[in-house]
Amino acid sequence: MLKYQEVANSLEAHIREQQLAQGTKLPNVEQLLNEFHVSKSTITKALTLLEQNGVIYQVQGSGIFVRQPRRKGYINFHKPKGFTDDLEEFCVTSEVLSLEIQPVFAEIAKHLKIDVGSDIYYVKRLRFANGHVFCLEESYFPIKHVPFLNTEIATGSLFHYFAQALKLTTGFADNYLHVIQLDNDTAKLLNLNSGEPALTTEQIIHLSTGEPFDYSKVTYHYKNSQFFMSINK
Amino acid sequence: MLKYQEVANSLEAHIREQQLAQGTKLPNVEQLLNEFHVSKSTITKALTLLEQNGVIYQVQGSGIFVRQPRRKGYINFHKPKGFTDDLEEFCVTSEVLSLEIQPVFAEIAKHLKIDVGSDIYYVKRLRFANGHVFCLEESYFPIKHVPFLNTEIATGSLFHYFAQALKLTTGFADNYLHVIQLDNDTAKLLNLNSGEPALTTEQIIHLSTGEPFDYSKVTYHYKNSQFFMSINK
Repeated sequence: MLKYQEVANSLEAHIREQQLAQGTKLPNVEQLLNEFHVSKSTITKALTLLEQNGVIYQVQGSGIFVRQPRRKGYINFHKPKGFTDDLEEFCVTSEVLSLEIQPVFAEIAKHLKIDVGSDIYYVKRLRFANGHVFCLEESYFPIKHVPFLNTEIATGSLFHYFAQALKLTTGFADNYLHVIQLDNDTAKLLNLNSGEPALTTEQIIHLSTGEPFDYSKVTYHYKNSQFFMSINK
Repeated sequence: MLKYQEVANSLEAHIREQQLAQGTKLPNVEQLLNEFHVSKSTITKALTLLEQNGVIYQVQGSGIFVRQPRRKGYINFHKPKGFTDDLEEFCVTSEVLSLEIQPVFAEIAKHLKIDVGSDIYYVKRLRFANGHVFCLEESYFPIKHVPFLNTEIATGSLFHYFAQALKLTTGFADNYLHVIQLDNDTAKLLNLNSGEPALTTEQIIHLSTGEPFDYSKVTYHYKNSQFFMSINK
């Protein structure tokens, strides 16, 4: 973990442990420099990260303040890394319905910027929070980025595996959201009825090099999932 | 407009006009310094803004690259300022169904951090893109921040009015999303049937001082709206 992330984590832990209310003024940059014994740019980076994550807000000429902790049980749409951390108050588990190497067809190849017919891992999973299904996920990973995958790995957090075992560093992601009526097959998997509502997302996740490495379609159970977004200026 | 915003706008306009493809390498910081004759921190701020808005990505030690322009016709969930700019390829219009000053009830007062019973503007609008309804919006503004509003103003972009006439500077926003089945009344307003799907958002928008000034509930027409989110590391 980088120094500024350590500082950010330490500040966030302090806010949460002390249960500081929104609007509570935090130490200023000078005071943080004395407390953490790091460079000013490290403090600045830590504050930017906390601001992006909706933990604090900064008012020019006035100071640094606590933002309200987001409601519990909401999936945070900001982090391109899966839900295991977002839903930390839940026990998140996955059931792998399908996992295979297959040649990629044109639509997915376009999103992943790879040749049609080249090999990808296709993974279809049901995901559960405290035993309740909250989404169906279909993911496509080019084997040039993800050379090995199996059911045991996919039963856990794929993003931890990518980061820790494959040393992949995620960069940015594009997310497209639609609301639909469920078809029969998907409804059955989610224990819902055909025609009931669902939020679907198409997500293209890129490595920090800018190469796309994950194209995923996720269909959320509308009764078992809700979402949070923090918007920053 | 601040200098770094001008630089950012100019760079974005260049990318769009030249129709540069994703992955196209842009001039480096040194070259941008020579081109714009501004300070390095202005360039850095402009690049951070463009990165946040999903226009570019930066690869450490490698350079600055173009990101794919998002698909047309998607509402960008990132900007706490209404849709008039997001749906710029459409003609966005509004029909004001209700606009009145009323005493605020407890649930909304809590979100806006004002006393129960204090005065707020309540505005209910249907919003249209190219004549097709895409959402029903109910907003609550404390009169201490929005002392005047009328139907003519609310028929246009409220956020332009807030920024230009009232000089309000928006800071951050919290967004909570749910997928529901429409009730009879809302369905009728959206030209849909009771029980059909909808995405609803609860948005609390804060001024740059951290004070909440807008609590809005928006119900989207699931056939006439789709959404984009850019996620950055």
